Amino acid sequence: QKRSSLHQSSNDLSKQKRVMVIGGDGYCGWATALHLSNKGYEVAIVDNLIRRLFDNQLGLDSLTPITSIHNRIRCWKSLTGKTIELYIGDICDFEFLSETFKSFEPDAVVHFGEQRSAPYSMIDRSRAVFTQHNNVIGTLNVLFAIKEYREQCHLVKLGTMGEYGTPNIDIEEGYLTITHNGRTDTLPYPKQASSFYHLSKVHDSNNIAFTCKAWGIRATDLNQGVVYGVTTEETAMHEELCNRLDYDGVFGTALNRFCVQAAVGHPLTVYGKGGQTRGYLDIRDTVQCVEIAIANPAQPGEFRVFNQFTEQFSVNELAALVTKAGEKLGLDVKTISVPNPRVEAEEHYYNAKHTKLIELGLKPHLLSDSLLDSLLNFSILYKDRVDSKQIMPSVSWRKIGVKPKTVMA
Amino acid sequence: QKRSSLHQSSNDLSKQKRVMVIGGDGYCGWATALHLSNKGYEVAIVDNLIRRLFDNQLGLDSLTPITSIHNRIRCWKSLTGKTIELYIGDICDFEFLSETFKSFEPDAVVHFGEQRSAPYSMIDRSRAVFTQHNNVIGTLNVLFAIKEYREQCHLVKLGTMGEYGTPNIDIEEGYLTITHNGRTDTLPYPKQASSFYHLSKVHDSNNIAFTCKAWGIRATDLNQGVVYGVTTEETAMHEELCNRLDYDGVFGTALNRFCVQAAVGHPLTVYGKGGQTRGYLDIRDTVQCVEIAIANPAQPGEFRVFNQFTEQFSVNELAALVTKAGEKLGLDVKTISVPNPRVEAEEHYYNAKHTKLIELGLKPHLLSDSLLDSLLNFSILYKDRVDSKQIMPSVSWRKIGVKPKTVMA
Ligand SMILES: NC(=O)c1ccc[n+]([C@@H]2O[C@H](COP(=O)([O-])OP(=O)(O)OC[C@H]3O[C@@H](n4cnc5c(N)ncnc54)[C@H](O)[C@@H]3O)[C@@H](O)[C@H]2O)c1
Ligand SMILES: NC(=O)c1ccc[n+]([C@@H]2O[C@H](COP(=O)([O-])OP(=O)(O)OC[C@H]3O[C@@H](n4cnc5c(N)ncnc54)[C@H](O)[C@@H]3O)[C@@H](O)[C@H]2O)c1
Repeated sequence: QKRSSLHQSSNDLSKQKRVMVIGGDGYCGWATALHLSNKGYEVAIVDNLIRRLFDNQLGLDSLTPITSIHNRIRCWKSLTGKTIELYIGDICDFEFLSETFKSFEPDAVVHFGEQRSAPYSMIDRSRAVFTQHNNVIGTLNVLFAIKEYREQCHLVKLGTMGEYGTPNIDIEEGYLTITHNGRTDTLPYPKQASSFYHLSKVHDSNNIAFTCKAWGIRATDLNQGVVYGVTTEETAMHEELCNRLDYDGVFGTALNRFCVQAAVGHPLTVYGKGGQTRGYLDIRDTVQCVEIAIANPAQPGEFRVFNQFTEQFSVNELAALVTKAGEKLGLDVKTISVPNPRVEAEEHYYNAKHTKLIELGLKPHLLSDSLLDSLLNFSILYKDRVDSKQIMPSVSWRKIGVKPKTVMA
Repeated sequence: QKRSSLHQSSNDLSKQKRVMVIGGDGYCGWATALHLSNKGYEVAIVDNLIRRLFDNQLGLDSLTPITSIHNRIRCWKSLTGKTIELYIGDICDFEFLSETFKSFEPDAVVHFGEQRSAPYSMIDRSRAVFTQHNNVIGTLNVLFAIKEYREQCHLVKLGTMGEYGTPNIDIEEGYLTITHNGRTDTLPYPKQASSFYHLSKVHDSNNIAFTCKAWGIRATDLNQGVVYGVTTEETAMHEELCNRLDYDGVFGTALNRFCVQAAVGHPLTVYGKGGQTRGYLDIRDTVQCVEIAIANPAQPGEFRVFNQFTEQFSVNELAALVTKAGEKLGLDVKTISVPNPRVEAEEHYYNAKHTKLIELGLKPHLLSDSLLDSLLNFSILYKDRVDSKQIMPSVSWRKIGVKPKTVMA
């Protein structure tokens, strides 16, 4: 009770030191939990490990071998002396979530804990419904837990740049000032998401914005670009701390997937024309951005939106970069165009703003030859673990149906 | 099978005559089902009757006595010879919904079947979660059923004007053309919903828009204003066809509630300053608008948005109109301002476009003395059924918590 009142009554934001990382067993969450622990924050991980179940159910695996969350945390403790608390459970179960709040008393919650693959959400009806239920209800529960138990707690929520789609005008950070028929207002930036996963993030953003206004919740929505890379300062400290790296057609994201393809001699798979342009960032910047958001919390009632990426690339540009880096390592890298399984523009205007995190101090790790080298070398190191059958896209936006898909193509 | 292929293969839109009315036991749905049946459409009602359960659970009741859906439909058959098919079940149960689609083979689905009260969604955490789950997942299921079983079926989905909130610029119908940094695009109109219910409608709109683009679904989103009135041509035909009329603090909407308050000598309850301005329409226009939408279906892949209301009023203007009409009937009508249970602007700019339904032939029933007379007389007729304890607002946007509220204030 003392701890609680101390933190709640204090307006000194530097006291906001207890951080709950929901989804802390995942790719971004694990790296972030270690980074925050290393920086001196008290960290708790909340995760139901369902991502490991998805991998089992679809017959997929991380390129890198990852040990159990229990071993990971024990290893961290033995290396650094730092404790990371662990709560295993589903945030859609409000009783469970309440207990984590009452027990850990977070000053900030970083919420990574969602089903995060667009293709997964387009496999079949039940996964589409699962994705929206899991993400929307989980986030609603987090909002209610903050309101009920930790009113001053700062919510740092992971959204995605995909919420914006590819409008023909510049993408701003969350809001757009519009003049129409002689009057002006600053309104939420229009969203055009293009999968049930991306839509779930738009729903979350709308729900969170409302609770900031109605309840005074303080929230930062991080519209994150596509993350690449595998090591951070902390995960590099021991092989048991190694992060996951997804290369398959369901969970693998563009640049990571290309590096693994190059390493195993599989052609780089460009979907359609390859003009799809998106924002990208190094996982070392993911952890940096989250720490910046926590160290500079939103005000009570403020719904703050940051576009969290450092550079824009088209898919064709990425393929060219990986080809060049691969050739330097003696790899023979080919590129093929595969029919686009998604419904999306393959050539479009794209200019997204991303200055707010820079203004708060982000020092970007821009995509470099050395990063590509290390990612390719990682991929070569683990190339025997690659299951080539998992590389091609197996989920079609147009062919999704109501019949449960029990085995992937 | 013959019926199916006949309708599916035909491009002649006048053949789209089989209409499934989801939520057909409710206020708008019942009036619409009868109207469409009267106009020669083949009608099926799909409803799990959960609205009747909400009333039981909260200790509320319609001002007007309503009989069972079974009696309603039997009465309609005996009066007109027309059959309305009935499917009792929950559209969140996809197995059930599939069977209704396979058995009825709709050419159009009118989807009223949601939890539709903003205060209900703000009672407690579990009702907030229920509202978003029920509405979002129900609508996802309808979209999947259309894709799987009736690709050409036109979805007519009830949204609400409340999705837009109260921006400081004119409200357009669904889309806004924006020029920004020298480039122009037409984007979804920014949404600023202000309850978990209104948010669920925004989520629906975003989900539907995506499926139009990705799957070629044809959809009309009717952003409906606040509906008033109780009788339509069809419900007036027999007392067993009588529609429900809600006057309580949870389900009662502005004008209907004021008329009942005036009839029982309760002061009209204006929330806060009363400058809240919204779009309104007569229930006779609800049924007309839906028929117009069905008769002029959206194209495959088109996500069409109509603002479905006929006039704008502020709450203070409505109170003044009801006061004047009440005095003509010899009622002594008082108005009080009660603390606003909602979080909303009480004075704001409001100018919402609503020309698209007019262009398609809507002939509005504007709010008139005779309508107010008849609504007041209805209220006087049933005034003994009024439970005064249910009139005041009992749900607070700011005080909502996680503890289940089992009895209302
Ligand atoms: N990886 C990217 O490139 C990327 C890009 C943009 C945004 N994001 C967002 O960042 C977040 C993390 O992404 P990631 O790549 O680390 O995903 P991930 O799948 O590796 O991690 C997500 C974690 O959340 C957990 N989780 C899911 N649902 C849960 C629930 N109901 N209760 C408790 N735990 C639950 C999973 O078990 C998993 O460990 C996601 O919200 C994602 O949408 C990721
Ligand atoms: N009444 C208004 O003023 C108004 C204004 C704007 C929009 N709308 C919209 O119009 C629609 C109808 O409103 P109404 O006033 O007739 O509401 P209502 O509560 O009277 O009717 C809704 C009906 O849907 C049914 N239903 C709810 N969830 C269901 C489910 N999962 N499966 C099957 N049936 C389900 C209920 O049992 C009920 O009969 C709603 O979507 C509402 O949001 C109404």
